[in-house]
Amino acid sequence: MIVKSKVKYINSLGDKKLRDADGVFVAEGPKIINELLGESRAEAVEIFALKEWIDENGTTSAPVQEIDDIMLGRLSFLTTPNKVLGVFKIPQLPALTFKGQLTLVLDGIQDPGNLGTIIRCADWFGISQVVCSADCADVYNPKTVQSTMGSIARVNVYYEDLAQLLSHADVKVYATSLAGKDVFDIQRLNEGVIIIGNESKGIRESVVGLAHERITIPRIGKAESLNAAVATGIILSAICPFPSRSRS
Amino acid sequence: MIVKSKVKYINSLGDKKLRDADGVFVAEGPKIINELLGESRAEAVEIFALKEWIDENGTTSAPVQEIDDIMLGRLSFLTTPNKVLGVFKIPQLPALTFKGQLTLVLDGIQDPGNLGTIIRCADWFGISQVVCSADCADVYNPKTVQSTMGSIARVNVYYEDLAQLLSHADVKVYATSLAGKDVFDIQRLNEGVIIIGNESKGIRESVVGLAHERITIPRIGKAESLNAAVATGIILSAICPFPSRSRS
Repeated sequence: MIVKSKVKYINSLGDKKLRDADGVFVAEGPKIINELLGESRAEAVEIFALKEWIDENGTTSAPVQEIDDIMLGRLSFLTTPNKVLGVFKIPQLPALTFKGQLTLVLDGIQDPGNLGTIIRCADWFGISQVVCSADCADVYNPKTVQSTMGSIARVNVYYEDLAQLLSHADVKVYATSLAGKDVFDIQRLNEGVIIIGNESKGIRESVVGLAHERITIPRIGKAESLNAAVATGIILSAICPFPSRSRS
Repeated sequence: MIVKSKVKYINSLGDKKLRDADGVFVAEGPKIINELLGESRAEAVEIFALKEWIDENGTTSAPVQEIDDIMLGRLSFLTTPNKVLGVFKIPQLPALTFKGQLTLVLDGIQDPGNLGTIIRCADWFGISQVVCSADCADVYNPKTVQSTMGSIARVNVYYEDLAQLLSHADVKVYATSLAGKDVFDIQRLNEGVIIIGNESKGIRESVVGLAHERITIPRIGKAESLNAAVATGIILSAICPFPSRSRS
């Protein structure tokens, strides 16, 4: 049996202030919960699950409480709750360093779903470090967590003053823009910073001015712009180094 | 002054059956409305706009009715209504033909936002023909229209029985899959069909079996999959022919 105050507490974790105060966030659904439980970095505080999920997953390191559909509906942030919900500790991040790796920098990505999709995309292309401007959506917003599809367990997401951070960058900085060098003509990179901007406004002046090169996705048709997550996917697919081959 | 029955009618256009019955759909926001009004194919039935939009846009071919913020909020499908809303006729489509062009085929893309983002992406890469399976989201769902960001005015979207349609394909058919030929090793194409599948289930067996080649986006990191719109963007960026250059 879950007491009312616990339901209220979990519901309150939709609010960033309350997440930060306790250093915890909520994740949902078998796919994401299982990925988080499988990564040593993500520490579960409590898991609430339907009997079905418990039967399939056996024991976990965290306390699991069996609940029914009705209670899951009360706890869940999803339109269609999905078997299991967990409260996890927000992990401590290692120090941010640019040398020897690719870093994705996001300037003003405000849609939580887009942010999550971008993090998932970074994870696909082996990028483990994403830096957000202060006005980006919060990575622990339940919608962001959901749309990372578990990649939140592997990608370190930082919030920084981008102008200040990039003014000290010791690697090459690339800014995506509508007018720049064709990204397919750039050599694949083992190290560097790639900045993606807000969908409608692009990258702000104080940040774009710190880039060493502007890169663009060539357009064939007439759409004015691409969704920021789609643009990120294309840029990373063109730039990230595949271990097995070099690009001609 | 807008009568209650009109508000009720526009609200009802969130329902596919009612859109189909009258052959109309709703679009919102200056960007999308202006793109639709700029394309001869999209015929406006009625435009409802704040004075601000009317002052900026002058006359249009369709009747424009000035409304206030409160009325816009009543008509709008958006969380944040945006100056203008229009009712447009669903255009008649030319006959579907595969020869001489690239066609994007979508199998079971159920999220309206994802479908719209994919259509926007097709438009960016110059693809003007998208074929959906019957269980895809509806292209005239207000959320889909919104996320096309105006590309719905230029891309023809068909709904077909994919297995039947592709069994008669007279061009090469490529299916995206988690195990196939690296998409960056495929020659850029002037003609052909590219199938994108449902995010969690992929392309159904009856459809994937009709493809001549399977293609995949190489993975460096650990994410299990990519968002369907992101995957579409990467595939199209690798395959679509840029007029100015050939791929080495």
